[in-house]
Amino acid sequence: MSIHELDVEALRAEFPILSREAYGKPLVYLDSAASAQKPRAVIDAMTNSMEHSYANVHRGLHLLSNETTSAYEDARKIVASFINAASPDEIIFTSGGTDAFNLISYAMGATVDGHSEINEGDEIILSVAEHHSNIVPWHFLRERKGAVLKWLDLSDDGIIDLDAYRALFTDRTKLVAISHMSNVLGVTTPAKALTRIAHEHGVKILFDGCQGAVHGSVDVREIDCDFYVMTGHKLYGPSGVGVLYGKKSIMDKLPPYKGGGEMIDLVTTEAVTYNESPHRFEAGTPPILEAIGLGKALEWMQAKGVSAIAAHEANLREHAIEELSKLNFVRIYGRAAEKAPIIAFTVESAHPHDISSILDRTGVAVRAGHHCAQPLMQRLGVDATARASFAAYNTHKDVEALITGLHKTYEMLG
Amino acid sequence: MSIHELDVEALRAEFPILSREAYGKPLVYLDSAASAQKPRAVIDAMTNSMEHSYANVHRGLHLLSNETTSAYEDARKIVASFINAASPDEIIFTSGGTDAFNLISYAMGATVDGHSEINEGDEIILSVAEHHSNIVPWHFLRERKGAVLKWLDLSDDGIIDLDAYRALFTDRTKLVAISHMSNVLGVTTPAKALTRIAHEHGVKILFDGCQGAVHGSVDVREIDCDFYVMTGHKLYGPSGVGVLYGKKSIMDKLPPYKGGGEMIDLVTTEAVTYNESPHRFEAGTPPILEAIGLGKALEWMQAKGVSAIAAHEANLREHAIEELSKLNFVRIYGRAAEKAPIIAFTVESAHPHDISSILDRTGVAVRAGHHCAQPLMQRLGVDATARASFAAYNTHKDVEALITGLHKTYEMLG
Repeated sequence: MSIHELDVEALRAEFPILSREAYGKPLVYLDSAASAQKPRAVIDAMTNSMEHSYANVHRGLHLLSNETTSAYEDARKIVASFINAASPDEIIFTSGGTDAFNLISYAMGATVDGHSEINEGDEIILSVAEHHSNIVPWHFLRERKGAVLKWLDLSDDGIIDLDAYRALFTDRTKLVAISHMSNVLGVTTPAKALTRIAHEHGVKILFDGCQGAVHGSVDVREIDCDFYVMTGHKLYGPSGVGVLYGKKSIMDKLPPYKGGGEMIDLVTTEAVTYNESPHRFEAGTPPILEAIGLGKALEWMQAKGVSAIAAHEANLREHAIEELSKLNFVRIYGRAAEKAPIIAFTVESAHPHDISSILDRTGVAVRAGHHCAQPLMQRLGVDATARASFAAYNTHKDVEALITGLHKTYEMLG
Repeated sequence: MSIHELDVEALRAEFPILSREAYGKPLVYLDSAASAQKPRAVIDAMTNSMEHSYANVHRGLHLLSNETTSAYEDARKIVASFINAASPDEIIFTSGGTDAFNLISYAMGATVDGHSEINEGDEIILSVAEHHSNIVPWHFLRERKGAVLKWLDLSDDGIIDLDAYRALFTDRTKLVAISHMSNVLGVTTPAKALTRIAHEHGVKILFDGCQGAVHGSVDVREIDCDFYVMTGHKLYGPSGVGVLYGKKSIMDKLPPYKGGGEMIDLVTTEAVTYNESPHRFEAGTPPILEAIGLGKALEWMQAKGVSAIAAHEANLREHAIEELSKLNFVRIYGRAAEKAPIIAFTVESAHPHDISSILDRTGVAVRAGHHCAQPLMQRLGVDATARASFAAYNTHKDVEALITGLHKTYEMLG
């Protein structure tokens, strides 16, 4: 084993849940794209805070508050370093990925002093492969502000045609909102090229990195994107926390999203003035324990090596695709050469829900449904698929369990 | 000790953090109104989920997802029972109190199909004692929609004059947003009377219960309020979770707040249709671990007895007020007979920040500042106060430590 290779058995031992069983079978968890399991380090970080050092942050002048504020602000620095932001001030903690998309949607759609970033007839470019969290906030701007959504189609394998993308821009385009990695097809989008073209048109670009940040290293300065969204619970961290990266120069000009404590400078009965970014966008008590947990999760990923994890996952994906391809009753959606270990598939004559239910009885957890990506389902011509998604803690043995379970599924339903 | 009395020493032993020291002194935590400490039961509930039973909720068909969904939905039932809601469907999990206020502000201010609940010139009644989380979202509607804020004054002790309240209503009044208990003065507002008068005028009423729900039993059906807001971290639960109670008949008619997964029925490139309440208001992956932790916190409170906790706190408050009143260099703000153990005070010739810093060195944690209630500070004629807030785990010994620390403070600064 080279120093760049994961010791997967040792790594698995850090995840208490992986030693449990499901229906008397060893648990084979292939649903990490929905939510990842948490390593001991993350569990301990949250527990330690609650047991030894917890108070509300920022507004306190006592020891516990100062300690907790330091831990919370350290987490912000870890996130900044994880994606190579220019400054921790460009990191806004949200309650999740969804909250981050809505932050930008509300901030760009708010009319303050007669000015709004997005107005009636202004256009937003999306791809048909977006997750609902990166679709519905823009539908809100269509419904409530008269914005126009322009949709980028993809190839059957989820590949973007840059010429088709370029053709969508007009002088009314105000924003591109697009995933860095599809949560169904696992395909990475060409983030740098997409950004360059958007900027050539003077248009801001937001990436949904909820999957992309999990499966490879992200450098927001190299991409040069304006906004980048992540969610904690898919990054081996807790639920209840997400991240919006936003360029300081842009965030400084956007109006606030939620009103409350901490995001203000002065409140009177007549008026309010607001705090600087990032605090302007973090109203009220933030997800304190959750940010601390997320910081620990990212440190854990960095200690294992983000590229070592990605290499392990590439190996798993290759093996899984190879084995799945041998099953003539299985159809895989998205055949791009470069993709993350997120594999959407169907089984001949079987409803995806039944695939999931039967696999479950063999100990194998996969997701089935529209994966919060109904426009992509429509594009692929299906109502639903099953989806097996792999993480750092999965092994070839998990692939074999999936294959065995699929044989059983086909026997029962095929 | 009667069966209704708390065994406070046994209860304290359930809070690991209370056995730590601050600067070599036993920790005296008097900052629970900012955020409460967490009992072992809450820490264990979150840890157990991460160690043994965790996946994303609702969308899964496998065992872990079903188990986690049950735990999450059980937490909703516990919250409903805690405040006597008519149905768990009236409980919406948010990321905190602030998020809940913003939900109502955005939902009532959104213009959908040309209709909005709150329009230019419409009026919202607030009291001057509100926390910024129940002020700034309404300032947003003033800034962005031209709504008008009408302010209810209070007596120096924080008492509401119902005639003055009644006089604020006009035919443009659309909402009353008022605290159930001031986070500075600790005074409970007459929720039933406030609600009856609002409803006589056909106006909806929202209560900020972020403090009120901590210090006494709440019955939303008896109050008959339309909305009631709570936050997890003040209720001995984790950060990152809050609750909006909303009458089903009202929530069913309000447009969604955040767009994302789970809150939709059908998404196409052209349109969206939305899910039923409460799911319409819970976009994306919810605070899973946090809701589970909050459910456990409320169960813990119920096991100890909400009224037993309140009785213990009333005894603490009485003792603290009595002892503080003996210090002729201390001024207490809010002298209502009926108040929670939240005591705002100043020390002659000392800035509140210095009070907090000196007390901190004696092991006593109190908050100092404007307590996110600047309009109330203006009303009281001060920039800031110190604030000692007591919880179920505090004792008379904590009161003595505060008094000793204040003598020291006055010696140094007075």
